[in-house]
Amino acid sequence: MPNSKLQAKEIRFMSRPRGGPSPENVAVVTVDLPDLQPGEVLVRNSFFSIDPYMRGRMNEGKSYILPFALGKALDGAAVGQVVQSRDAGFPPSAWVLSFCGWRDYFVAQASQLRVIDATQAPPSAYLGVLGATGLTAWVGLNDVAKIKQNETVFISAAAGAVGSVACQLAKLRGCQVVASAGSAAKVAFLKNQLQVDCAFNYRESDPLRQLEIAAPDGLHVYFDNTAGPQLEAALACMRNHGRIVMCGAISSYNAPAPGPQNLHQVIIRRLRLQGLLVADHLHRMPAFLAEMVPLLRAGKVLHQETVLHGIEKAPGAFISLLQPGDAHIGKLVIQV
Amino acid sequence: MPNSKLQAKEIRFMSRPRGGPSPENVAVVTVDLPDLQPGEVLVRNSFFSIDPYMRGRMNEGKSYILPFALGKALDGAAVGQVVQSRDAGFPPSAWVLSFCGWRDYFVAQASQLRVIDATQAPPSAYLGVLGATGLTAWVGLNDVAKIKQNETVFISAAAGAVGSVACQLAKLRGCQVVASAGSAAKVAFLKNQLQVDCAFNYRESDPLRQLEIAAPDGLHVYFDNTAGPQLEAALACMRNHGRIVMCGAISSYNAPAPGPQNLHQVIIRRLRLQGLLVADHLHRMPAFLAEMVPLLRAGKVLHQETVLHGIEKAPGAFISLLQPGDAHIGKLVIQV
Repeated sequence: MPNSKLQAKEIRFMSRPRGGPSPENVAVVTVDLPDLQPGEVLVRNSFFSIDPYMRGRMNEGKSYILPFALGKALDGAAVGQVVQSRDAGFPPSAWVLSFCGWRDYFVAQASQLRVIDATQAPPSAYLGVLGATGLTAWVGLNDVAKIKQNETVFISAAAGAVGSVACQLAKLRGCQVVASAGSAAKVAFLKNQLQVDCAFNYRESDPLRQLEIAAPDGLHVYFDNTAGPQLEAALACMRNHGRIVMCGAISSYNAPAPGPQNLHQVIIRRLRLQGLLVADHLHRMPAFLAEMVPLLRAGKVLHQETVLHGIEKAPGAFISLLQPGDAHIGKLVIQV
Repeated sequence: MPNSKLQAKEIRFMSRPRGGPSPENVAVVTVDLPDLQPGEVLVRNSFFSIDPYMRGRMNEGKSYILPFALGKALDGAAVGQVVQSRDAGFPPSAWVLSFCGWRDYFVAQASQLRVIDATQAPPSAYLGVLGATGLTAWVGLNDVAKIKQNETVFISAAAGAVGSVACQLAKLRGCQVVASAGSAAKVAFLKNQLQVDCAFNYRESDPLRQLEIAAPDGLHVYFDNTAGPQLEAALACMRNHGRIVMCGAISSYNAPAPGPQNLHQVIIRRLRLQGLLVADHLHRMPAFLAEMVPLLRAGKVLHQETVLHGIEKAPGAFISLLQPGDAHIGKLVIQV
């Protein structure tokens, strides 16, 4: 049982990558945990989340969120259980969601934690389909794109954490879903597990040609997780007054890439492109959970995740996640 | 007085340009006009409009509007007077707006004409500040960008037809206006006549640096008439939740250009980019005129136009209009 002499392991950010991150950018470090003060809680993480957006925080400079500080543990969403507590709202063994990052044990202010209901769903689902990931997909389709029944929706990085939820929600709304991913296994997952209407491997075929075949009448909505050539292809296939949810740009996280040559299609087709950061939409969490929890419990939404075991796996998994053709399907989490 | 043997001059589209249009792409042709049939009207044009969007119609292929047909007169907005009429709604000497293009005389169905009130404003104003041009600026600011008092608005091609109206309307709404253009004379016009808060020559200084100086707290709205480097600079200076009206892309009409390298700012800053074609907004014309006519008559909005005399001037003026640093200020019209 941990006490004041407890040690914790954390993954510490040591240097800012140029281009793709590499193992030398981080270090696994053992630290002493402090004694609990009033209002503090000791948590043992069970799972933490590996997310593409973290690449942006590795860069210096002003952004929507502070850059990762050098010499500190990498932040990120995690779920775990209370071990010791000096706050009445967080009794021992309660499951909590936190954003204190890539650690096994940590001490936090109670205000940094949120209790989750592990009787409703597996705890790791609160990082994925019931967490910020799922909320991103839900808000993007409902509040930003405002999808309607029978519309044709293209989703890139569709086998990823956000994409795999977006595919399922769009299908449940009665949309026709065209999905892309970067490996044959992911395409098979999209077709067989998520039962999208059409899925293609963007690395082995021309996205423009694939979209023309899959959506001969054009796209009402594009849920963009990649930017790059798939955005350019989608712009060429949008219907008039189509909507593009700008959610991710994984094709350019490691290195800046030219923008689409055909951005003038935004004028010609009177498109709306809108940027989405889930942090703006946290007030929608109750409405989101009210819909998602029953869907998940009824088996109408699949909670797809790839679980890797051991905190030391995190850096390699993150590096891989940013590569085209990465093998992880669904939400990527580390089991501590 | 013209009769059934009347001849008319028209500017006919002869070949599709590759890159910038050249004089050989058109021909000035004399044609016989037909006898008037019931419901037809003979019009003598006084002014016709030269617009950058026409470059797009010179290309083949599907777009929001049919491409110009080879061997036919170039279409475009014009104002003129009824000479002979076989429709009671269009008595001789009535002023009419039409879209029958670059001709001196023409015969049209009455349904192709709209009577304008030349007692309210000079007839050519119905091509500019009171026409589709002005409506574009008004809809872009009000309905698309939804500008609010005290916001900072950047307008490119600001000395052009749409830009010069947008600058004035944004000032009247209590916005701070940053304006760009491609010559010293235009910058002087923006500062002295339109009294914008800041104007710069995008060809002689770095747009990004200029925007950083002019709007240190960032841009709420960018009214984009150019795309290209000015769009890239604006993306780098937008405030969170800023709006970009995608109205024109004159920097790329003659040749495709790469898109902005920093389009991911749309996500980071949660921007909304929205394409605008005035044809979607013609139902707003009454509300627009109800506001604009009094403003114009009270001298609160300047009707800035460059008038060239003689139908033969049209091709050269159009070619020039698409060049960086073109000298025309405000709406460009040909007086027939």
